[in-house]
Amino acid sequence: VRTRSLHGPSPVTKFGPKACMLQNPKAIMHIQDPASQQLTWNKPPKSVLVIKKIRDASLLQPFKELCIFLTESKNMIVYVERKVLEDPEIANDESFGVVIKKFCTFREDYDDISDRVDFIICLGGDGTLLYASSLFQESVPPVMAFHLGSLGFLTPFNFDTYQSQVTQIIEGNAAIILRSRLKVKVVKELREKKKAVQDRGEEKGLIVKNGESEISRRTVQYQVLNEVVVDRGPSSYLSNVDLFLDGHLITTVQGDGVIVSTPTGSTAYAVAAGASMIHPNVPAILITPICPHSLSFRPIVVPAGVELKIMLCPDARNTAWVSFDGRKRQEICHGDSITITTSCYPVPSICFRDPVNDWFESLAECLHWNVRKKQNHFIAEEEEY
Amino acid sequence: VRTRSLHGPSPVTKFGPKACMLQNPKAIMHIQDPASQQLTWNKPPKSVLVIKKIRDASLLQPFKELCIFLTESKNMIVYVERKVLEDPEIANDESFGVVIKKFCTFREDYDDISDRVDFIICLGGDGTLLYASSLFQESVPPVMAFHLGSLGFLTPFNFDTYQSQVTQIIEGNAAIILRSRLKVKVVKELREKKKAVQDRGEEKGLIVKNGESEISRRTVQYQVLNEVVVDRGPSSYLSNVDLFLDGHLITTVQGDGVIVSTPTGSTAYAVAAGASMIHPNVPAILITPICPHSLSFRPIVVPAGVELKIMLCPDARNTAWVSFDGRKRQEICHGDSITITTSCYPVPSICFRDPVNDWFESLAECLHWNVRKKQNHFIAEEEEY
Amino acid sequence: VRTRSLHGPSPVTKFGPKACMLQNPKAIMHIQDPASQQLTWNKPPKSVLVIKKIRDASLLQPFKELCIFLTESKNMIVYVERKVLEDPEIANDESFGVVIKKFCTFREDYDDISDRVDFIICLGGDGTLLYASSLFQESVPPVMAFHLGSLGFLTPFNFDTYQSQVTQIIEGNAAIILRSRLKVKVVKELREKKKAVQDRGEEKGLIVKNGESEISRRTVQYQVLNEVVVDRGPSSYLSNVDLFLDGHLITTVQGDGVIVSTPTGSTAYAVAAGASMIHPNVPAILITPICPHSLSFRPIVVPAGVELKIMLCPDARNTAWVSFDGRKRQEICHGDSITITTSCYPVPSICFRDPVNDWFESLAECLHWNVRKKQNHFIAEEEEY
Amino acid sequence: VRTRSLHGPSPVTKFGPKACMLQNPKAIMHIQDPASQQLTWNKPPKSVLVIKKIRDASLLQPFKELCIFLTESKNMIVYVERKVLEDPEIANDESFGVVIKKFCTFREDYDDISDRVDFIICLGGDGTLLYASSLFQESVPPVMAFHLGSLGFLTPFNFDTYQSQVTQIIEGNAAIILRSRLKVKVVKELREKKKAVQDRGEEKGLIVKNGESEISRRTVQYQVLNEVVVDRGPSSYLSNVDLFLDGHLITTVQGDGVIVSTPTGSTAYAVAAGASMIHPNVPAILITPICPHSLSFRPIVVPAGVELKIMLCPDARNTAWVSFDGRKRQEICHGDSITITTSCYPVPSICFRDPVNDWFESLAECLHWNVRKKQNHFIAEEEEY
Repeated sequence: VRTRSLHGPSPVTKFGPKACMLQNPKAIMHIQDPASQQLTWNKPPKSVLVIKKIRDASLLQPFKELCIFLTESKNMIVYVERKVLEDPEIANDESFGVVIKKFCTFREDYDDISDRVDFIICLGGDGTLLYASSLFQESVPPVMAFHLGSLGFLTPFNFDTYQSQVTQIIEGNAAIILRSRLKVKVVKELREKKKAVQDRGEEKGLIVKNGESEISRRTVQYQVLNEVVVDRGPSSYLSNVDLFLDGHLITTVQGDGVIVSTPTGSTAYAVAAGASMIHPNVPAILITPICPHSLSFRPIVVPAGVELKIMLCPDARNTAWVSFDGRKRQEICHGDSITITTSCYPVPSICFRDPVNDWFESLAECLHWNVRKKQNHFIAEEEEY
Repeated sequence: VRTRSLHGPSPVTKFGPKACMLQNPKAIMHIQDPASQQLTWNKPPKSVLVIKKIRDASLLQPFKELCIFLTESKNMIVYVERKVLEDPEIANDESFGVVIKKFCTFREDYDDISDRVDFIICLGGDGTLLYASSLFQESVPPVMAFHLGSLGFLTPFNFDTYQSQVTQIIEGNAAIILRSRLKVKVVKELREKKKAVQDRGEEKGLIVKNGESEISRRTVQYQVLNEVVVDRGPSSYLSNVDLFLDGHLITTVQGDGVIVSTPTGSTAYAVAAGASMIHPNVPAILITPICPHSLSFRPIVVPAGVELKIMLCPDARNTAWVSFDGRKRQEICHGDSITITTSCYPVPSICFRDPVNDWFESLAECLHWNVRKKQNHFIAEEEEY
Repeated sequence: VRTRSLHGPSPVTKFGPKACMLQNPKAIMHIQDPASQQLTWNKPPKSVLVIKKIRDASLLQPFKELCIFLTESKNMIVYVERKVLEDPEIANDESFGVVIKKFCTFREDYDDISDRVDFIICLGGDGTLLYASSLFQESVPPVMAFHLGSLGFLTPFNFDTYQSQVTQIIEGNAAIILRSRLKVKVVKELREKKKAVQDRGEEKGLIVKNGESEISRRTVQYQVLNEVVVDRGPSSYLSNVDLFLDGHLITTVQGDGVIVSTPTGSTAYAVAAGASMIHPNVPAILITPICPHSLSFRPIVVPAGVELKIMLCPDARNTAWVSFDGRKRQEICHGDSITITTSCYPVPSICFRDPVNDWFESLAECLHWNVRKKQNHFIAEEEEY
Repeated sequence: VRTRSLHGPSPVTKFGPKACMLQNPKAIMHIQDPASQQLTWNKPPKSVLVIKKIRDASLLQPFKELCIFLTESKNMIVYVERKVLEDPEIANDESFGVVIKKFCTFREDYDDISDRVDFIICLGGDGTLLYASSLFQESVPPVMAFHLGSLGFLTPFNFDTYQSQVTQIIEGNAAIILRSRLKVKVVKELREKKKAVQDRGEEKGLIVKNGESEISRRTVQYQVLNEVVVDRGPSSYLSNVDLFLDGHLITTVQGDGVIVSTPTGSTAYAVAAGASMIHPNVPAILITPICPHSLSFRPIVVPAGVELKIMLCPDARNTAWVSFDGRKRQEICHGDSITITTSCYPVPSICFRDPVNDWFESLAECLHWNVRKKQNHFIAEEEEY
């Protein structure tokens, strides 16, 4: 019987009768087959962060039910963002008020809960996972994500049986998929001192000051689950950015912009821009031009270990704009740089079945593979008249 | 200083305060960073297979020069396919006849030279590497590939300085890239005994007889460097094939066919069918539908470790055809199957510079990134009037 | 109030203070706005050809009902192809036998019914219209096409209310859309006299002998509703065909092949190969390369009046294959040519509502515009978490 | 001998033995075959507007030469925009000063020269034609466009032989192509009276006041040669716009935006977004989604006579932005609308050879059809090894 594996097989290291690979023990890595990755608990989990998509009335009842279940039946400490509770439908529900009192609340960008949450439950859409990712700039607790309407790429669990499924996760092992993130460093040249001070409070990434250098620079770092997008922003004209890989200029991207995404992000904006869909266990970074001027410029997939850098092209006449999982949009001027590489802090997503089946289920849903029968009028066949 | 790597970084294995990855020592693999892969020789190489693109007059002189250099200056035993020497331009060149006498010759499909060749030199085009690959169904000797006209994806060396470059390879270390191959097993139900016998001689793969089973089946195995193509063959009607991944039906591909390719093959047929271009160090398999009936069916990239199987859809009214690196075209009927997974016998290609630079050089050439300046009339800018 | 029009407005013919268009009365055409095209009858229609998709059990009952209605209630003479009646489900239905006796039957390729049919009713799929088109190489009677399952591009009528709808067509006016066809001439050099004789009987197009010329040529002509496809056929290698427009070589198409289609055909094979979808009232011909070798080769739309010619490229090493609406597949060798231009014999399709609404209804169905709500997990939005 | 035509042939109007097209004399249009369109002069042309791409030093010398030639040898009155003459390289050239004194100068948006220019000469790039188009909101004088570097889509003339070519145009007939434009009406609800007044001065289109209506609206009209682009502007989130055709909602476009272009514009931004390339003589409007959320949403080509309307989707949470040939970028809010139809004021472009050859020449240049030979390493062929 073949053991399931998501690794490729180890290649032979002898090539013909006399050649072989030079052994380099320092360059050897030890990787556990993604097909066998299981979650375990050092100690029983006690605290759970519940993230709810806002502005979606259909989620209110499931949210309340889930919180009551976690608090009352499971004795968990529930963390909820304060603004979720400000929704009048929640704030004015007196019967729910008793439960709310037991919650720990926090405010985004003010309270750091990154070392207090044992696991995360998301309710409502792929965006909830992006938001969860943004709250944890280093190690991320395991995430269990429920869809309520149709299956999403990142939300494999069906809410109907949430009680048994949550119980099972709390009690023991579960298959997980490590969704790689990108570590993105934005280095901006500071032109006005005032601006730098103002901005600091707003940034949600880690701020790494670089005070000693003569030219003042500010470095902000982000962890990105889907993609970094560099685009023309409000300008009508082509963006013009240089793309460097491990220090070498690879090409200038002329067009609406460029998307650098994880495999997880390949099924989001990148696929709309023409990229292939990459399984999240493939260790890779995807570079996708947006409406490129050059018709032969195709999306490119590079190994996870490379370091990319994006800067304005020296002769660019307009600035560019960058955003991170659709957030923190900011301008990129001459001299600024964006450095991107694979992070060592992935998002551990709990699988409904396993990394392969979960992914293909979501593809089938999103690509309408299940409605194939309806499409048979598309290309006519002679025998069908 | 950052050490160059083509691996992603090892991810942390603790997730929040209490969760971690369950250790599974049996599932751990030890992989050398592709960025540090170097060739070495156990013993000095003595024999070299020279492969020349046929029907290209411009290659005759370089071929002769190279063979004389290898034989006379380097004292190597040169292997050449017999039909290459049958070219009148070579056979009738008396001065070259002296050198030819020292050659070892062989015939494709008759003589097995797979354990007698220490390294391989290719002259002339990406097709020479595909041909070299087909000669070695298991371990492949290192390949050094020269382009004579423009740079190819698989032929990084410029012939102008062949002497010093060949010398350097023979003498010692060189960066190599392991180009993964696909191991493809075709299982055909035998309908006529005669046909099975006839065919056997023609097959260039390893023939694995399966005599005991009640229903007679024949299994042939191929090593593929670029891609396996399943298409509608001479039929005008859509092919209709089922695609299985690790035993599960993923989807039915309706259209002109489907391409299963290595990263090396991503820049060949697959890119013409709309796929992204994948660096050969990404451990992945690329599945690309050809003109799919369903407009939302995009190319898919899966981890190198999965096992794919392709069969005719049970209600398909036409057969399909399969080919391997453009060769061995054959019909696939109901009951036949094609099983594809990553092989442990890659093609070790000697790099001109390194795996990253060589690849981007060839992309730049093939995507006309070097002619960017000429394209600036494409999308007009206001400021340019 | 704006009058609906599918014409562009007449352009002004004065350009600035002193320039104007040189009048050329001979080159003026008089075209009725497609938005106002209505069917009328010179005499009441008496005969109707009923075309049924074969091998589809769900169509048997509607087919019988319709034939009884036409024969008994409407006193029409029903034409049916003989092989349709050979289906045991029809032949063995004794109660239907009475009706069958009143039918006129015919055999494809033997009996010419092109001047005996007043209108055509199609049941079952876009393929039925292609088949109807193939029966009428010159003027085509009006076609009324019913879908039974989901809406097709060419089958706008719902069968549920067939009685009132058929009655309305018989009685008077109806909006029609003239679906342009391509007139395709295939000129083959005759290499063997025998082959020419054999082939003649099989051809369904008009045979135009060309006996006087020294080199023997055979010309066959086809009317095509969707597309002419030239492809590599059973070969694994790229096809290599030269494309001429009004006598000038435009480009060589290297790849899997090329599709020349009408706007009607733009939503069939061409769209799967990457073409834009063209409304059938746009007077144009669409040229779509199939998996072209050159990544920047995009589909091209040219005016309906041009004449295209396709021949093997002189240095092509393989032949190509051509088919017409998926039929009459044949080999194209060196010296053969395929000449394509817009035909003056369109297919007059009866509209369910009007040319614009019918088309967008079918697009919405085929592009799943009606399932938009289900897709909202695709690209996550910040506000949605 | 076949007469060249860019019209489709007149279709027959009898369909089978008894049906025919209902004659509707009011709906008949008289169109001159585009293949025969020739320019002529009512009176000899006396004034010429010269448009030069700015910030391109290589154009200075040709510009001066051309102006001297027109002024001295041809006795033409040369119109030049004032800011072109403010370039120090021109202003400080004393020898050229004598010529400048004879020029008529004007300022964009202040001086209306639309009825004083007999023809237009463009120097430098496709953008010059877009600029010329923007200066003439109604009838446009004939345009002769020179490229200096590589051939553009809109600039067929080579400057090397400008003297003889300009002389020929002035003296008599020349083939012209009428490049259709889009007439675009933007209706904005006025929320602040002040804003309306401020904006008025900036608008370059025709301002059509709509003072009587209770809700204050402002209508501005533009003539567009390439395209109208509606996009998400500075927002990170999908734009969400409703597309109406002749008053019916066709679909909601979710994605980066949508491009509505002329055939001329099909080779500009639209092709980068995936559209087919449409010959400028095809009477059509091209609708191209930009990175659409729905993977099956393809570019659509509709007849030139339809009227499109774009509005924000009622449940859109962000505004959209619109621009016209890359200019006049402005925000579109709830209640605003953009109405688009084919204009009756095309741009008459003087052909170098004829409409067909000029277009294919520019395609060949831009698609690198001329560098085909260099690409033969892309897809390997067995026979080529």
